[in-house]
Amino acid sequence: MKSEQDFINFLEKLKSYDRKIIKGIGDDCSIIRFDKSKKYVFTTDTSLLGPHFTKDYTPEEIGYKCLATNISDIASMGCIPLYAMYAITIPKMSERWLRSFYKGTSKLLRKYKISIIGGDTTKGPLSITIQLIGIQNNKILQRDGAKVGDDIYVSGTIGNARAALLMAKKSTGHNYFRKYLVNPIPRVNLGLEISKFASSCIDISDGLAKDLKNIAISSNKGFKVDIEKIPVTPKLNQYILPKDMEECILGGGEDYELCFTANKKYYNKINNISSKLKINIRKIGTITNKGYEYTQNGKAMKIKSKGYDHFSGN
Amino acid sequence: MKSEQDFINFLEKLKSYDRKIIKGIGDDCSIIRFDKSKKYVFTTDTSLLGPHFTKDYTPEEIGYKCLATNISDIASMGCIPLYAMYAITIPKMSERWLRSFYKGTSKLLRKYKISIIGGDTTKGPLSITIQLIGIQNNKILQRDGAKVGDDIYVSGTIGNARAALLMAKKSTGHNYFRKYLVNPIPRVNLGLEISKFASSCIDISDGLAKDLKNIAISSNKGFKVDIEKIPVTPKLNQYILPKDMEECILGGGEDYELCFTANKKYYNKINNISSKLKINIRKIGTITNKGYEYTQNGKAMKIKSKGYDHFSGN
Repeated sequence: MKSEQDFINFLEKLKSYDRKIIKGIGDDCSIIRFDKSKKYVFTTDTSLLGPHFTKDYTPEEIGYKCLATNISDIASMGCIPLYAMYAITIPKMSERWLRSFYKGTSKLLRKYKISIIGGDTTKGPLSITIQLIGIQNNKILQRDGAKVGDDIYVSGTIGNARAALLMAKKSTGHNYFRKYLVNPIPRVNLGLEISKFASSCIDISDGLAKDLKNIAISSNKGFKVDIEKIPVTPKLNQYILPKDMEECILGGGEDYELCFTANKKYYNKINNISSKLKINIRKIGTITNKGYEYTQNGKAMKIKSKGYDHFSGN
Repeated sequence: MKSEQDFINFLEKLKSYDRKIIKGIGDDCSIIRFDKSKKYVFTTDTSLLGPHFTKDYTPEEIGYKCLATNISDIASMGCIPLYAMYAITIPKMSERWLRSFYKGTSKLLRKYKISIIGGDTTKGPLSITIQLIGIQNNKILQRDGAKVGDDIYVSGTIGNARAALLMAKKSTGHNYFRKYLVNPIPRVNLGLEISKFASSCIDISDGLAKDLKNIAISSNKGFKVDIEKIPVTPKLNQYILPKDMEECILGGGEDYELCFTANKKYYNKINNISSKLKINIRKIGTITNKGYEYTQNGKAMKIKSKGYDHFSGN
């Protein structure tokens, strides 16, 4: 067991005692059928000083990002977030800190009508674990449904979060990218729209290369991606060296955009959703039988990016 | 906001967006009515090196205790634990550590037929947050139902966990008390039995004085407790100095026994449950209109113990 994935694989094999569990471990959320008509999804994520936020984050920014990244897991399942639990560890009890943290989350609580149903506060090295419970709307999107010939789409623009990390903090342009890193927008509405027809979906938290590979592995398929088609902001080309470009768009995570697959026949429908929600959605490739292929200017390209692993730090 | 309780009070006042929420923040668990026939309870607890376990704990012991203390919250609500999520932060990825941690929890998973439905593993200062979901069996026990004249009961023996902390680690007798501190037994079966009739219940995690006071505050009542009636092991009198006795039985937490209230008419029934489950249950006092009174040898006694606060460390 050398990585987070190995431990997930180990836990995945454990005995489940309950027939209400539709999906245990191994996707962005687990799925439980509590009553006959609706399934619920469950997710938990820990955010730490270092890997998830840095000392320059205000408590409000920490609160926003911790909740947003959990909501993103619900969004990637095409579900509606409902209830949150906050487990907060801070070095020193501070009313100002806690209120500010809460203020950061409250924008999202109001926007998505999420209720806080519990929590725990302890004294120790700064660490935030949020659990979020959501409810199914249409189909629940999982990683394992991609079919050969399906188109692969991503929302928004990719690579901005990693760009913020690569750039010097006081350099020109850093503020532009920092807002993507610190204030990611969970794609709840997009998840709900595509949940009617998409074949698989994941949120880009660990880097497009790794997250798309997770779809491929779970679906037992391959993919072909045209790197030129991956949507980036014009500023990315302006501020990021060509040598770092692959790292930004394929390796760098924390974009919290959705990567999903759908049958070709939904191409126009997806463009309509893009217009309706005012969210950029781009087709970047196709699901294949096997292998992970990247092309640029029509030529095959070897990529180095493996995506983020919470343990190796790569 | 100077304590954990202040932050809980703050969160308690927040808007709830969902009519399925029966009880949000402010008890051992929150309560949600997912379907028409059954309510579910939710709890989360963070355990840290320092306040919750020490360097001498094996990963197996850490796993056992982290899960046991969460199960205890479900037990105190008179519910059945069903699903767990593990959010684990460890300084270094170690297969041996994770398997050992899991092994510690697996005894409890098997015993109570709890399924792991998710988790997150990250690299950082050792910290474990477990969320647990349970389901109602009979009535759900809350803190706020105590009535004037109700008897107050506690299960097991009190003060052993704190005794282990007060004694030198290599002293005679330490091992005896350490097993209470490290391997607390969540009182699930007792919670289920008394859930048919008890008027309120809490688990003794922060110290009897504080936890009983929480029942009194939530129920808007007072209490009278006869300190001599609080059940202790003979070894406690043998190994703990008289000056530290109050600290052990009233101030010291982590016993994870149940403290509950019930109408006087259930006295015999409770004795029968005690025999059936082979769990010591002792009546220690009575619910009154107001005030928190302690007596010893018939004389009123002033107590110093305030119980454990996760921030002040008292």
